[in-house]
Amino acid sequence: MPRLRVHGFSLSLDGYTAGPDQSLTDPIGVGAGPLHEWLRATKTFRARFGKDGGEQGTDDAIAAASDAGVGATIMGRNMFGPMRGPWADDSWTGWWGGDPPFHHPVFVLTNHPRAPIALRGGTTFHFVRDGIESALAQAFAAADGLDVRIGGGASTIRQYLTAGLVDELHLVIAPVLLGSGERLFADTSGVQNGYECVELVTSRAVAHVQLARRRE
Amino acid sequence: MPRLRVHGFSLSLDGYTAGPDQSLTDPIGVGAGPLHEWLRATKTFRARFGKDGGEQGTDDAIAAASDAGVGATIMGRNMFGPMRGPWADDSWTGWWGGDPPFHHPVFVLTNHPRAPIALRGGTTFHFVRDGIESALAQAFAAADGLDVRIGGGASTIRQYLTAGLVDELHLVIAPVLLGSGERLFADTSGVQNGYECVELVTSRAVAHVQLARRRE
Repeated sequence: MPRLRVHGFSLSLDGYTAGPDQSLTDPIGVGAGPLHEWLRATKTFRARFGKDGGEQGTDDAIAAASDAGVGATIMGRNMFGPMRGPWADDSWTGWWGGDPPFHHPVFVLTNHPRAPIALRGGTTFHFVRDGIESALAQAFAAADGLDVRIGGGASTIRQYLTAGLVDELHLVIAPVLLGSGERLFADTSGVQNGYECVELVTSRAVAHVQLARRRE
Repeated sequence: MPRLRVHGFSLSLDGYTAGPDQSLTDPIGVGAGPLHEWLRATKTFRARFGKDGGEQGTDDAIAAASDAGVGATIMGRNMFGPMRGPWADDSWTGWWGGDPPFHHPVFVLTNHPRAPIALRGGTTFHFVRDGIESALAQAFAAADGLDVRIGGGASTIRQYLTAGLVDELHLVIAPVLLGSGERLFADTSGVQNGYECVELVTSRAVAHVQLARRRE
């Protein structure tokens, strides 16, 4: 069965998944850089940007597995871009340039209508206005038997979690303190009964925690 | 130099250090048992209660190190007992029975006066009404060159952290979700600049994160 999964989503020790004040110059908020240091150091991530070298251990295996078997991605509007409200025009096509690293359909949750954007390399952004269940149904249909990944951010993952729709949740605990920002786990009471840890490993940089839906 | 340290303090993945509704029957709040499963499984912990066997790896080494070099403990009123407000009488002497596992002076932060309680095995509970700095000065004096440990709970640790008084903070991330309860990291903005991770290891059960005051 295709699964809905979250993969490689980073949390600080104090529970933040992004810093405050997201903007064009701070896509993941101010001061949140250390959260993703583990990922930027991997061979897989560096290769995406044409760079040699990089970590080839646990973290790299996680980074490489992130795309494996995924046929569609769902993300929140704030992960797609820093602007809020109605789309002023069609100039913004995401943070990732003309050849985004998805290579499959991406469903962006938004309240504001916009036509799909097809970019190079197989990535098409679709804008979904009728809720998370609709986005999920469209994503599973587009994934054609493969898994669907929730890219983020925290609010989007939280909505799917509290709706009981997430099958696998892989979190990366970065041993840093951010002090403020956006939490993944806030008002998620009830979620605790649905998941259990199936794997816990550390690299030199971070702890990886794989949660799966608890078996009945 | 003697240090002020927190050792083996458990957090859930969603950031809770205790469950809600602490009471006589739920000393750490409802549903928080899984947080300390790692500790209860260790040889060191079991030996305290006269039991054989137990885990002898990473977790046991941490459990054993918890008491090493510690000459005094500070704790909050809520860690000492479930009652609130003025002490009704002197009958409550803590959760730990007549021979508590501290074997040194323990300073309990409270707003309500109470005479010290000397118990077997070298544990004396002192009740401190004039604030965290006073308790710390008294604890360092009593520790006589050894370290002072903050036993908990979250609120007490947070007060010392935000005051910049903690030298070492060893946290244990239990890969469980509690859903609700008391957070260690809430309104701790500013603390992030003072600490860095100096060790990160996992056992089969949990991730251990050692933070130390950042070197200038």
